[in-house]
Amino acid sequence: MNKGFLVTFEGGEGCGKTTQIKKLAKLLQQRNIEYIVAKEPGATELGEEIRNILLHTNLDLSAKTELLLFCASRSRLIEKVVLPALETGKVVILDRYYDSTTAYEGYAGEVKLKDVETILKFTIGQGAQPDLTYLFDLDYEAGIERKLTDHQLENLDRFETKGKGYFEKVRHGYLEIAKKNKKRIVVVDASKSIEDVYEEVVKVFDERYAKKQNS
Amino acid sequence: MNKGFLVTFEGGEGCGKTTQIKKLAKLLQQRNIEYIVAKEPGATELGEEIRNILLHTNLDLSAKTELLLFCASRSRLIEKVVLPALETGKVVILDRYYDSTTAYEGYAGEVKLKDVETILKFTIGQGAQPDLTYLFDLDYEAGIERKLTDHQLENLDRFETKGKGYFEKVRHGYLEIAKKNKKRIVVVDASKSIEDVYEEVVKVFDERYAKKQNS
Repeated sequence: MNKGFLVTFEGGEGCGKTTQIKKLAKLLQQRNIEYIVAKEPGATELGEEIRNILLHTNLDLSAKTELLLFCASRSRLIEKVVLPALETGKVVILDRYYDSTTAYEGYAGEVKLKDVETILKFTIGQGAQPDLTYLFDLDYEAGIERKLTDHQLENLDRFETKGKGYFEKVRHGYLEIAKKNKKRIVVVDASKSIEDVYEEVVKVFDERYAKKQNS
Repeated sequence: MNKGFLVTFEGGEGCGKTTQIKKLAKLLQQRNIEYIVAKEPGATELGEEIRNILLHTNLDLSAKTELLLFCASRSRLIEKVVLPALETGKVVILDRYYDSTTAYEGYAGEVKLKDVETILKFTIGQGAQPDLTYLFDLDYEAGIERKLTDHQLENLDRFETKGKGYFEKVRHGYLEIAKKNKKRIVVVDASKSIEDVYEEVVKVFDERYAKKQNS
């Protein structure tokens, strides 16, 4: 077991992941706890190239091809960013990780869940399992509304434009994943205020982080 | 079973695949047999982007990341090029296919053969299995010499510059794959003259193609 702590933030569009990640990062900084934040896909040169392909082109990729691209980016992220940071005892905060693949390409896409699991197992390998995952749960209307309030309408990427049916499949997928991973995943009601969500995030983080440090 | 015929050309650098593919394509044209030729990675917009990442950057990718990128490109190629052509009865000629992944990332890289097999099975799916594969077998010295004769020294990409040890692992891998797939793969002695190799290529093609047409 490495000395670091891997915490991942998952959830649909507009659920408030990024805001909470920034707040948690600030807290860690104040406490002098070493940390890094990375966003998937991206965070490496290869990841950025793949991010451009996935989010900003009109290729209309199949869920299978999408899955393989995400996993290539993730494999690189694990090797170059996640494992080196964990090995030096850092807190690693990921904005999306493999649960997104299971939700988007598995539950909402057409890739069989068994295949998704197999490819993810190969990609993740040993040592890059999250110690804690927050699932920010939010319904479609609230998510889209929050995006609009943030004046991000012009930035809706190809995932965000897939509509309500797709969003709800993703949401259902996330909740199923949470049910299957009760020890790792904490479901957060993301419709609550930023401060209320933050309070919950910190409370859970403190418990789990302390537990790992003392183990 | 589709009506088309999928033939793949495999082998290390400088083995003469491209020359023979051109000659076979010309023959099919003369015979009014519909065909397409595609090169891996590449042949689709996504494939070209992945090709650029794989061959022309200094990212020093792990074999695992490489494998996932090749498979993303291949998944796209199968969906957009191979299956549509086979379904309309065309001959599909591929310059490299999944045996390259097994040889390069499996036998010569550090990915376990069992994992390579699993990911390839997921990527290829049903209906895109080659009807015939030529393995052009050549030793390192002859391959490099041929590249140099072709004035391609300045084009040696990152695979080609990995040296003799790597080349020989790839060669050994290909020969092992051929042993395990005797019905599908024909090993061709690529040190023979272009005309002698071509004669063998056509002879085997005619037998196998006629057999599938009559089946």
